[in-house]
Amino acid sequence: MRRMIPTSFSSKCQGVISMNALRCYVSEFISTFFFVLAAVGSVMASRKLMAGDVSGPFSVLIPAIANAFALSSSVYISWNVSGGHVNPAVTFGMAVAGRISVPTALFYWTSQMIASVMACLVLKVTVVEQVPIYKIAGEMTGFGASVLEGVLAFVLVYTVFTANDPRRGLPLAVGPIFIGFVAGANVLAAGPFSGGSMNPACAFGSAMIYGSFKNQAVYWVGPLLGGATAALVYDNVVVPAEDDRGSSTGDAVDV
Amino acid sequence: MRRMIPTSFSSKCQGVISMNALRCYVSEFISTFFFVLAAVGSVMASRKLMAGDVSGPFSVLIPAIANAFALSSSVYISWNVSGGHVNPAVTFGMAVAGRISVPTALFYWTSQMIASVMACLVLKVTVVEQVPIYKIAGEMTGFGASVLEGVLAFVLVYTVFTANDPRRGLPLAVGPIFIGFVAGANVLAAGPFSGGSMNPACAFGSAMIYGSFKNQAVYWVGPLLGGATAALVYDNVVVPAEDDRGSSTGDAVDV
Amino acid sequence: MRRMIPTSFSSKCQGVISMNALRCYVSEFISTFFFVLAAVGSVMASRKLMAGDVSGPFSVLIPAIANAFALSSSVYISWNVSGGHVNPAVTFGMAVAGRISVPTALFYWTSQMIASVMACLVLKVTVVEQVPIYKIAGEMTGFGASVLEGVLAFVLVYTVFTANDPRRGLPLAVGPIFIGFVAGANVLAAGPFSGGSMNPACAFGSAMIYGSFKNQAVYWVGPLLGGATAALVYDNVVVPAEDDRGSSTGDAVDV
Amino acid sequence: MRRMIPTSFSSKCQGVISMNALRCYVSEFISTFFFVLAAVGSVMASRKLMAGDVSGPFSVLIPAIANAFALSSSVYISWNVSGGHVNPAVTFGMAVAGRISVPTALFYWTSQMIASVMACLVLKVTVVEQVPIYKIAGEMTGFGASVLEGVLAFVLVYTVFTANDPRRGLPLAVGPIFIGFVAGANVLAAGPFSGGSMNPACAFGSAMIYGSFKNQAVYWVGPLLGGATAALVYDNVVVPAEDDRGSSTGDAVDV
Repeated sequence: MRRMIPTSFSSKCQGVISMNALRCYVSEFISTFFFVLAAVGSVMASRKLMAGDVSGPFSVLIPAIANAFALSSSVYISWNVSGGHVNPAVTFGMAVAGRISVPTALFYWTSQMIASVMACLVLKVTVVEQVPIYKIAGEMTGFGASVLEGVLAFVLVYTVFTANDPRRGLPLAVGPIFIGFVAGANVLAAGPFSGGSMNPACAFGSAMIYGSFKNQAVYWVGPLLGGATAALVYDNVVVPAEDDRGSSTGDAVDV
Repeated sequence: MRRMIPTSFSSKCQGVISMNALRCYVSEFISTFFFVLAAVGSVMASRKLMAGDVSGPFSVLIPAIANAFALSSSVYISWNVSGGHVNPAVTFGMAVAGRISVPTALFYWTSQMIASVMACLVLKVTVVEQVPIYKIAGEMTGFGASVLEGVLAFVLVYTVFTANDPRRGLPLAVGPIFIGFVAGANVLAAGPFSGGSMNPACAFGSAMIYGSFKNQAVYWVGPLLGGATAALVYDNVVVPAEDDRGSSTGDAVDV
Repeated sequence: MRRMIPTSFSSKCQGVISMNALRCYVSEFISTFFFVLAAVGSVMASRKLMAGDVSGPFSVLIPAIANAFALSSSVYISWNVSGGHVNPAVTFGMAVAGRISVPTALFYWTSQMIASVMACLVLKVTVVEQVPIYKIAGEMTGFGASVLEGVLAFVLVYTVFTANDPRRGLPLAVGPIFIGFVAGANVLAAGPFSGGSMNPACAFGSAMIYGSFKNQAVYWVGPLLGGATAALVYDNVVVPAEDDRGSSTGDAVDV
Repeated sequence: MRRMIPTSFSSKCQGVISMNALRCYVSEFISTFFFVLAAVGSVMASRKLMAGDVSGPFSVLIPAIANAFALSSSVYISWNVSGGHVNPAVTFGMAVAGRISVPTALFYWTSQMIASVMACLVLKVTVVEQVPIYKIAGEMTGFGASVLEGVLAFVLVYTVFTANDPRRGLPLAVGPIFIGFVAGANVLAAGPFSGGSMNPACAFGSAMIYGSFKNQAVYWVGPLLGGATAALVYDNVVVPAEDDRGSSTGDAVDV
């Protein structure tokens, strides 16, 4: 670990296979399961409500609000247990920043992927409809879509770092609201273009159940690079580790 | 009571028929009345606005936002009085977890059911329209709908347990926001499939005033099992009673 | 004053014509002006966007979200100055509960009414369109509409009392969020029926600029009675003055 | 500096070209970039979703929700670093109120403008569509539009001053939620009339990439005057500097 930045959850998840670590994986599983259920389910709902129309305004509005609500809540319910990642790009950023170890990150990824596949499976079986996969607008290139998804993931992971930083003197449990709001805003902005996934686990789960990994790289390369960049910019440029500036002591009393 | 987990409201509601207990039932009545008024009223509103169309996108979008806003607020207004259950599945989970006694749970249920029936009655009489009942999509089985409603209720009750747990060190009054967000996300994901009720009282009240209990079991079995499972998973797997981990002391100062 | 219940703002506004009291009226003016601007402006916006259609789903969805956002914010910006009433029904409830004096309430009302008229005037002049007035659905009676508006105002004022009660141990500044959410949920539920005003000042301002006071009584009698009932139920039944129960000391540390 | 009002961030950004000041500009850049990406991107998304229709209800509803979510989050992520201005009108108000120096304000403006241009450029290039510019409804005058935008900016800047004022005793990190809600409500009310920009940087960036500065004055004069007026009214009328009233000590313990 390169530096010692305090995080909102203690290092109880670092042990990889201790009882506490197992609880973290279960917590991450539940959060990701719920998020994917809402994110993918809301796309299915919007299609059914529009009798199959997959490109009208509701195909973005309904999933965007579902993303905002569900990501806020799913981050919240694992906030002080596993850290509320819910997204492999967040986990990747945390690992790049040295806040979690690489083995822990791999277990988190595994947990998130299984949860996403299971959520899509539950939807497909109970609702008796095919799950959707993320698509890219016809006039866009895969590279352009990857850049856009990467920029969106940058903002998301940057917000997670803000919300997880006790040095900022911000009340920690309000953070999940803003993390969800970022997801909602991003889907509203990028929905009809690159899909606004920002979450490789979500893209992976629906692709697995749908049975096609077309464009899957777009939803991995962009978000992972965006997340890693956010982690490095946050820790090295905007709020460096050696700079504690008295924020957490000066402002905490105002909270 | 099997264990001693502190909750966000003191045990003042345990006495079943003390003055304090009566206040809890009134508080639960007001909260459930308001929630059902908004949940059922918004379905009626969406139908009137669409001149009778009961399957367009607004039939889910308008109730979903109403559910999010109304559940947040109705949980909030009874938060430190009765605990803000507003839902028999939450009360059931609390009883299964040993946080409230069975007699108290039964009084809560009674209060919630009467409130729901009264809210539907007020709507029907003032608005001069029939109230709606929850329906299941044609291609789904009753079993599939029950599983889906159970999964949704699992997430809702799990979030309530998170929000009610002072050991998490999360500011308690922010919790109702996330509880409402879960309801909104779930309606957006499951609205056109199983209805996204998650709340047996709401389904009961509208069925009573409508005069048909078709599929009623779906809205009781799934949510109650889902709620009980959430309670057991939360207390035994993710945040066990014997595990206080210092969260509430370590993080409380950041808030 | 019948009892001494602490409120979230000190009694600085009681002096009627001191400098501090004048600041309260200005604060109440700004908040009400902003709320009415958003509430009435969003109805005008929805009409323009639908080329004059006044009964489609957007005629309720757009104003409902505007109400939720704007009431949250307008209560927030006057929260610790004037108490964030923004609504004559809230002021009436506060006076009935003995928390503000009758002369202060009358000055608040005056301030709210002038603000509402000015907001509607600014809209009409800049936007070059007629302002809308609240209407009642054809099949409803004026009495039914008044009852519905009264029930909605009950919930709103009850939530304001919850949010203003330091004995509850809830973080005070989160309250405005829920107050706004109640307004949003109520508009979604009652919009196409009684309009979902809940706010006599808003109904008065638009009627004044529109030039018709038809049904005006509906938007005064129901909300004022509902608000007064909420005040009495809150103070005498659910959270009586003599009952401090240690909530504010017991839970405050968790926040 | 005319008076000493404490703000939510220490005076670390005053040095203009120190390391800390550079961090503030980077923080302001990231926040404004994200906000403009969501605000302008959501307009592009709504157009694509409606196959080119630029005046239907989704052309306002989708951007309004995106504005609310994105402004909340973008203010939040720079809240304790640069103060979370994100908007030249806010920076102007802060300078008029003497809370930041004029040189700092100019660097903030520069940072916000570059961020906005870059965000619009990223959108145009990745999405392969022309960016939109703010338009004024046919029947409105430029003067009327400027007044309306000025009134909207007044409310926005007034809310920022409330949220930044530790003397109010409100939890500081909840403020960004309300700031975003004001933006959302204002777009819903003014979207089809003057566009509901309130943000000169956003209007500048899209005009620069679109290649037309028609009506640009409307989106600068109104918001800057509105922002300056809000700063003066807040500091001199509603919450004067010499008036500390004990709020921050009296209420802080409730938080």
